Amino acid sequence: MQCVSDLGNLRNLLLTIQYDGRSFHGWQIQQNALTVQEVFQNALKSVVGEFSGLKGCSRTDSGVHAIMYCVSVKLSHPIPAHRLKNALNSYLPDEVVCIDCVEVDDSFHARYDCKGKQYVYKIWNSQTRNPFLNGYALHYRYQLDEKLLDKASQAFVGKHDFISFCTLDKREKGDFVRNVRMFSVKREGELVTMTVEADGFLYNMVRIMVGTLLEINQGKIAPDAIAGIIEEKNRAAAGATAPACGLYLNKVFY
Amino acid sequence: MQCVSDLGNLRNLLLTIQYDGRSFHGWQIQQNALTVQEVFQNALKSVVGEFSGLKGCSRTDSGVHAIMYCVSVKLSHPIPAHRLKNALNSYLPDEVVCIDCVEVDDSFHARYDCKGKQYVYKIWNSQTRNPFLNGYALHYRYQLDEKLLDKASQAFVGKHDFISFCTLDKREKGDFVRNVRMFSVKREGELVTMTVEADGFLYNMVRIMVGTLLEINQGKIAPDAIAGIIEEKNRAAAGATAPACGLYLNKVFY
Repeated sequence: MQCVSDLGNLRNLLLTIQYDGRSFHGWQIQQNALTVQEVFQNALKSVVGEFSGLKGCSRTDSGVHAIMYCVSVKLSHPIPAHRLKNALNSYLPDEVVCIDCVEVDDSFHARYDCKGKQYVYKIWNSQTRNPFLNGYALHYRYQLDEKLLDKASQAFVGKHDFISFCTLDKREKGDFVRNVRMFSVKREGELVTMTVEADGFLYNMVRIMVGTLLEINQGKIAPDAIAGIIEEKNRAAAGATAPACGLYLNKVFY
Repeated sequence: MQCVSDLGNLRNLLLTIQYDGRSFHGWQIQQNALTVQEVFQNALKSVVGEFSGLKGCSRTDSGVHAIMYCVSVKLSHPIPAHRLKNALNSYLPDEVVCIDCVEVDDSFHARYDCKGKQYVYKIWNSQTRNPFLNGYALHYRYQLDEKLLDKASQAFVGKHDFISFCTLDKREKGDFVRNVRMFSVKREGELVTMTVEADGFLYNMVRIMVGTLLEINQGKIAPDAIAGIIEEKNRAAAGATAPACGLYLNKVFY
């Protein structure tokens, strides 16, 4: 049983971090593989000693990047939030940075209180690769028709059962209905960016959506086929899972 | 003595490459250190066998990047220029790419025929580091006054003896007069980019110019001091040499 004075001292903090996913096997701690959670916990321990209830806003796959990733954690150490940010940054490796730290209500939970997320997927669309985007974008040599794909992707928008766009594993429980709020495909020179926002995402959902759009671009899947693929509720009807390197968790909504 | 038929078969080619300098100890071949020239020569040898007179447009330091770097080389292999580009890319590592290959006059030399170069220097100007710019930009925490520095940098423009902005070593021969055609300092959000164009550059010249501007920003050197530093012809009067990671060879003019 925890004593009242201990409970009284615990503060709940929301930390926002960014990381270059190339160096890590995703967020969630694993044996025999370096993860963001491991280096983050080590830095936190170095600064505040003990902590409890550390929760990340989502799992991210090996190689996936985060422009915004949120973590909640309870600690008794009295360090002010803004100082904790700077102290963590002096312990974190170059590939991970804490960009914000604020105190939140005791009940706040980085995962359960999340109201939605936005992912971006970057594609370097050129005959020749870009040496500065190794691991930061998918290199795709065929000419991408961003207008065609932007139009086709609108079939994702709305509340649907996305089981066709999910890699089934033991981690997927409950229903497969998600509300996709927006999907866009835009070009800036040779860089094509796909952006998708939803109340939540299934395992590999964005990467399978992107893979399906790439197969539409290559003529393997018809541009108007997405609604039918959703209805089929069959993973085999959708396209391949696009590589992790182009994927960025871009925003987390609370 | 080379026979006439051999000479007749030699073609002179101009190849344009890009590289991520993080992986290399600069362009020029060295013992016991990986350089861009070494991996480029290895790829070229794999594709065409023998070649001669390979010349790079400039030395670049360890860690310096190239958006555009030019190489001239003579070879007797009959491969069409556009095919050589693609073949090289299949042998080059991810960090180096050939973006163009054309046939040029026999007399063309990538270094001696160069009429000028443009460098850019990227600075991430924020309290917190950017995990996606490790080795791609200098992280500078103090607020940069880009307008002040842009104005101060105009004193670099013109034909001057730049010995104050040169690391003296055995490689520097002849005179130290160079014609700086333009210098600009611009901000896009937290990214500040300095751009400088000249008919030629001395060893470490851009990095010392940038280091001097950073010391002007910090109040260690007066904003109007640059003309005087040039006149002094004394390396000690200028600022420190800025780190290599922010520097990109951006354009080469012929």
